[in-house]
Amino acid sequence: MSNLPPIQVGLLGIGTVGSGVFRVLQRNQEEIRRRAGRGIAITMVADLDTGRARSIVGDAAQVVADARAVIANPAIDIVVELIGGYGIARQLVMEAIEAGKHVVTANKALLAVHGSEIFAAAQAKGVMVAFEAAVAGGIPIIKALREGLTANRIQWVAGIINGTTNFILSEMRDKGLDFDVVLKEAQRLGYAEADPTFDIEGIDAAHKATLMSALAFGIPVQFDKAYVEGITKLQAADIRYAEQLGYRIKLLGITKRVDGGVELRVHPTLVPARRLIANVEGAMNAVVVQGDAVGTTLYYGKGAGSEPTASAVIADLVDVTRLHTADPQHRVPHLAFQPHAMSDLAVVPMERVVTGYYLRLRVADQPGVLADVTGILARAGISIDAVLQREADEVGGEGSTQTDLIILTHDTAEGTMNAALAAMQALPTVLAPIVRIRKEELA
Amino acid sequence: MSNLPPIQVGLLGIGTVGSGVFRVLQRNQEEIRRRAGRGIAITMVADLDTGRARSIVGDAAQVVADARAVIANPAIDIVVELIGGYGIARQLVMEAIEAGKHVVTANKALLAVHGSEIFAAAQAKGVMVAFEAAVAGGIPIIKALREGLTANRIQWVAGIINGTTNFILSEMRDKGLDFDVVLKEAQRLGYAEADPTFDIEGIDAAHKATLMSALAFGIPVQFDKAYVEGITKLQAADIRYAEQLGYRIKLLGITKRVDGGVELRVHPTLVPARRLIANVEGAMNAVVVQGDAVGTTLYYGKGAGSEPTASAVIADLVDVTRLHTADPQHRVPHLAFQPHAMSDLAVVPMERVVTGYYLRLRVADQPGVLADVTGILARAGISIDAVLQREADEVGGEGSTQTDLIILTHDTAEGTMNAALAAMQALPTVLAPIVRIRKEELA
Repeated sequence: MSNLPPIQVGLLGIGTVGSGVFRVLQRNQEEIRRRAGRGIAITMVADLDTGRARSIVGDAAQVVADARAVIANPAIDIVVELIGGYGIARQLVMEAIEAGKHVVTANKALLAVHGSEIFAAAQAKGVMVAFEAAVAGGIPIIKALREGLTANRIQWVAGIINGTTNFILSEMRDKGLDFDVVLKEAQRLGYAEADPTFDIEGIDAAHKATLMSALAFGIPVQFDKAYVEGITKLQAADIRYAEQLGYRIKLLGITKRVDGGVELRVHPTLVPARRLIANVEGAMNAVVVQGDAVGTTLYYGKGAGSEPTASAVIADLVDVTRLHTADPQHRVPHLAFQPHAMSDLAVVPMERVVTGYYLRLRVADQPGVLADVTGILARAGISIDAVLQREADEVGGEGSTQTDLIILTHDTAEGTMNAALAAMQALPTVLAPIVRIRKEELA
Repeated sequence: MSNLPPIQVGLLGIGTVGSGVFRVLQRNQEEIRRRAGRGIAITMVADLDTGRARSIVGDAAQVVADARAVIANPAIDIVVELIGGYGIARQLVMEAIEAGKHVVTANKALLAVHGSEIFAAAQAKGVMVAFEAAVAGGIPIIKALREGLTANRIQWVAGIINGTTNFILSEMRDKGLDFDVVLKEAQRLGYAEADPTFDIEGIDAAHKATLMSALAFGIPVQFDKAYVEGITKLQAADIRYAEQLGYRIKLLGITKRVDGGVELRVHPTLVPARRLIANVEGAMNAVVVQGDAVGTTLYYGKGAGSEPTASAVIADLVDVTRLHTADPQHRVPHLAFQPHAMSDLAVVPMERVVTGYYLRLRVADQPGVLADVTGILARAGISIDAVLQREADEVGGEGSTQTDLIILTHDTAEGTMNAALAAMQALPTVLAPIVRIRKEELA
């Protein structure tokens, strides 16, 4: 055991995650010291609400309102940024790096957008920026991608990386309810925020997918290239039809190596119900990584919450404690690949992405409709995997009836599908906007 | 990128795993170098079958029959031991350490039995012994336990860590067949070895559980203290009854922190069918880790095979490449905790282990049997969770009929259950040896 005094940590922001970090570090301090070989102590906390901060840390740490006082303190070795967002958090992280501090952050938005700038600054300064908590909360998925699977040429990564939306989708399926109803319930239960936009529109998942894409393929973070589609338009009917066809609908963050580039996309996705990831319910997260040597691996756990996220933040603190006096050359590269060995693989435009599709068409129940629709698909070279035609269920004007026609297609380029969709939508017998959901076999 | 020449690796044994390591290192050499910052090259291979070895490595590496020639070669930085077993492998690993080589090994048997001696020698010599491939093949579970979850007081670890037995159990369930029939099929398909003893008797799983126990709780490896029960006595009927009660039967390696010590055991286990791990099928592996901060996490992937195991071996090679010139103080401790901070928590005897139980009694179908059986349980203080009584299905001598009585109990100490089992077995109406399978809720 080293006789070094504890490494000193300054927290910027002590809300849900920060208080978890403080509490777990206190509770498990002996266990953590036995692992790290050195104590880890939060000795300074900056929070605008100094009263709340003091009520959490008591006399254990100095509390200040000004984050820059933490950065300026020469006794602080590691700065933990838990403020969130792109604004002041970005400035403070850059200033902490400039001051020679190692940084631990849970801020996926910041890294997905400004990661290149931040990692370059850290590299130049010889400090570490660790971010295990930025993706999938307590699941050590960054470590798996960056260290555990180094032997592999990663082929794809697909994850349920937003607990709020997975909770909503699970509830929609369990209870047969539509999105709006379940969102309100999720807000009441604290699973969704008052302003849930980042979650339900897929933006949070896209931040995380962007980071995993960089780690998997050795490319710079490129959030602006990500395709992002949320779950707000999903209907209970589609979840039910998918179930009948043997699929579950999950909001997946997907990044995939393809000819000429990398796919990077977030959207609702049909996944075969027998896949383990299809059975990840409620607010849980799971990430599947496919490598050429290891095959399929999956990582599952809580993707958010005070102590699960704190678990990841503290794992980073232990890593930094172990490595901060070591030669920077021996540290794990921020984005898994050495900074001078990054790839320039481009993120391919969505039109070139190839997936299967679930289509739901509201059609007039009359002869020739199926022939018209399948004829358009055939002419576009789109191969059909399954068709589900329901009995006519609604009487329209003048005694006409309507029905749902559900089609699963084999792999098709998005551009091809878009053209076919436009043609189908123009059919007079197609009575409502066609629902299109992408499908991945994940095999 | 470093200008250092490739780090030189010597392989001891180039069978299934060794050839996978060689092949993946060759195929992904550029990808691996971009991550590690330095090339990794197998330059020497020792195998008794030098002809086969040469046919695999060609001119890329020197092939010798004598493993000691590899250890004696001053150019070799890392020795990869893939011989297996406790005999010559132990000697060679100790000699490699003595010669100042870092060691990477997939040999769980060796480490579970002789780990203390080996890790102490490595510590004294300042070299690393890395063993990611020793547990759950390509799944980076050692890294998760040792680095990813350092914030946590680990509460328990439970894993499907033997692919052969999971394949057999999956087939027994799918096809309703008994053990012997499925074992023969597994042998024909290459999922079970000609001598399957280590797998089917639970010994291989116990080796791995022993290693996870040490990593989770900071205790020395103590394979001799593990309780080990295999799957050879399992019957299709029990798998079917378990299913009717909402459970699957899996061979689990379990290690758990309890009052006064640590449980360490391998046995067939009823697991609720809705748990993710209950849905791990075929030869796949999965490990669930419960930590006080992170909650439940699960790690899933291929637990064996040439390239999945190679994936773990190479991840270790990259770790060693990154850390071998660093101060030994900054390396991750072999058993997750610093050598001077190990715990002396004892492995508790099986009599004190507390679990639920599944009992199947073959009883005479006559009044009072259920009362007799439940009376014994009640007097022992054993609480019943569920009872399943089948209709009488068999006519015995003199027109008497028999039936299966299935009982699920709540948590009970094994010693208490043993006494109750003896009393029930002595009832004249209990007509065959009682089947007892342990049950874990894993919640």
